[in-house]
Amino acid sequence: MAITVVGSVAYDSVETPSGRYDRELAGAATYFSLAASFFTDVRVIAVVGDDFGPEQEAVFHARHIDITGIERAPGKSFFWEGSYLDNLNEAKTHNTELNVFASFEPKIPDSYRDSQFLFLANIDPVLQRRVREQMPDVKLVAGDTMNYWIKDHRPALLEVLKGLDILLINDTEARMIAGNNNLVQAARGVLSLGPETLIVKHGEYGATAFFSEQSFSKESQSPHHAFRAPALPLEEVVDPTGAGDSFAGGFFGYLASQPELTPAVFRRAMFYGSVLGSYACERFGTERLQQLTRKEIDERFLVFRELTHLD
Amino acid sequence: MAITVVGSVAYDSVETPSGRYDRELAGAATYFSLAASFFTDVRVIAVVGDDFGPEQEAVFHARHIDITGIERAPGKSFFWEGSYLDNLNEAKTHNTELNVFASFEPKIPDSYRDSQFLFLANIDPVLQRRVREQMPDVKLVAGDTMNYWIKDHRPALLEVLKGLDILLINDTEARMIAGNNNLVQAARGVLSLGPETLIVKHGEYGATAFFSEQSFSKESQSPHHAFRAPALPLEEVVDPTGAGDSFAGGFFGYLASQPELTPAVFRRAMFYGSVLGSYACERFGTERLQQLTRKEIDERFLVFRELTHLD
Repeated sequence: MAITVVGSVAYDSVETPSGRYDRELAGAATYFSLAASFFTDVRVIAVVGDDFGPEQEAVFHARHIDITGIERAPGKSFFWEGSYLDNLNEAKTHNTELNVFASFEPKIPDSYRDSQFLFLANIDPVLQRRVREQMPDVKLVAGDTMNYWIKDHRPALLEVLKGLDILLINDTEARMIAGNNNLVQAARGVLSLGPETLIVKHGEYGATAFFSEQSFSKESQSPHHAFRAPALPLEEVVDPTGAGDSFAGGFFGYLASQPELTPAVFRRAMFYGSVLGSYACERFGTERLQQLTRKEIDERFLVFRELTHLD
Repeated sequence: MAITVVGSVAYDSVETPSGRYDRELAGAATYFSLAASFFTDVRVIAVVGDDFGPEQEAVFHARHIDITGIERAPGKSFFWEGSYLDNLNEAKTHNTELNVFASFEPKIPDSYRDSQFLFLANIDPVLQRRVREQMPDVKLVAGDTMNYWIKDHRPALLEVLKGLDILLINDTEARMIAGNNNLVQAARGVLSLGPETLIVKHGEYGATAFFSEQSFSKESQSPHHAFRAPALPLEEVVDPTGAGDSFAGGFFGYLASQPELTPAVFRRAMFYGSVLGSYACERFGTERLQQLTRKEIDERFLVFRELTHLD
């Protein structure tokens, strides 16, 4: 079933210990949709500026991603500049220019209306909510956010959380939302705010899912019940930018491709998320995702199984 | 088969967000031997002072741990004082008193000589080496170390590494030994110094094993081959002291209990290590390990499987 994703389609300038690049196509919705496109149809809602041309469109078209909902506005696309020189697990932001995103009013094309899956990538929670409200009948809604919205836009974020089935964030964000340093207690706090499932991404250590009693993905009554997907120990993390969005794309794309949502499907989706996240880090920007094949994805899925399974 | 372990039997004063305790029985060899005693016979080599009496002996006897090799010396036992107030993943040391350990000359009792497994807990590498040399015929040798020895006693530590089959350390220590921040590259560096297997402990994120070509635990030719055991997300980490030593005890104890060393046995041993490490954190000091049962261990082993397995 098709996924509609709303989020940034942007340009990044990034420096890592492996090198640097300037103003390359990036953005959460770009990483997400490239990753999800290996599993299902993906439709993007975003706004771009005059700097988005045929070359960038071709990246989406090559993966059969629907960009009817990418609006063109006069001005420049969203731009982010950051580095990971001291710590590959955490970006240092040098510059953020909202540009055309500052006055973005997301509109859902009619051809997107039958999407059963909705992903609200990390943008202003006011925009996330507006998209959510325009698509009341979707089967499953997942979303992401970041420290900036948690800290300074809490009331708007809390409204978004009420409408989410699955929230994907990192350790620090989970602890910030709940105001609790213990991850299990923080997870319970986040789940009490709306989402039935919380996925906490640990960077190079993988990701853990926590479940409320209502979650389709919960299958055990164990008080310890959670599910942990590993990350792949990588010889060289060339560029961690977009790894979390690629995880989300692999995860949600796989879910959307399955006839039924079961705990077993959920677990496999977590592994596919890790697979896409690991590939994203192997080259600069979206390069690896653009060249990836489904065969490589399935091969690495088996590597992940071998990495964690007893037999 | 029996394990001989050399390391500290000590007293700790510890403060954590959950509370504090003063001068309770602790030490790496104590945690290790309690954890390993659920799987096999354990024999301890250490030195204690006048403050070690029948009450402390009873803790070992209750778990059928052989303490013939715990030497009594005039003076006080090794003492460590630390806290985890800001960060449960890393202890802050307030005070270390070597006391009787300062002049320790480890001697192997004759009754220990048929031990097939040897564990060199975190002590001066000169002492680790002396014990290793007195037990040349053991089947498998594992060991631990810490930042202090890596930084200031490197030549002695390198000699110890040459004689180890398995080294168990944390992320920071692996990066320090190899002088490389990438974990995969650091692991390769450490493996080139002697151990056939390196287990890197990630605290609340579990542990990863890396293998040299010679390792009995290596079963795959995949360039990504490693094995990752999870840690259990815990509602309350009462006291992380000894969690790494308990991991080592559960891991090595299970290995020693098996008729054959195979990759499958190695994987299960990693899970048992995680199980013992998780229990150790649930109460102050060695309290939880003292009260633990084999039934609880096997129950939690299944929880760990459920936490990570696809089906």
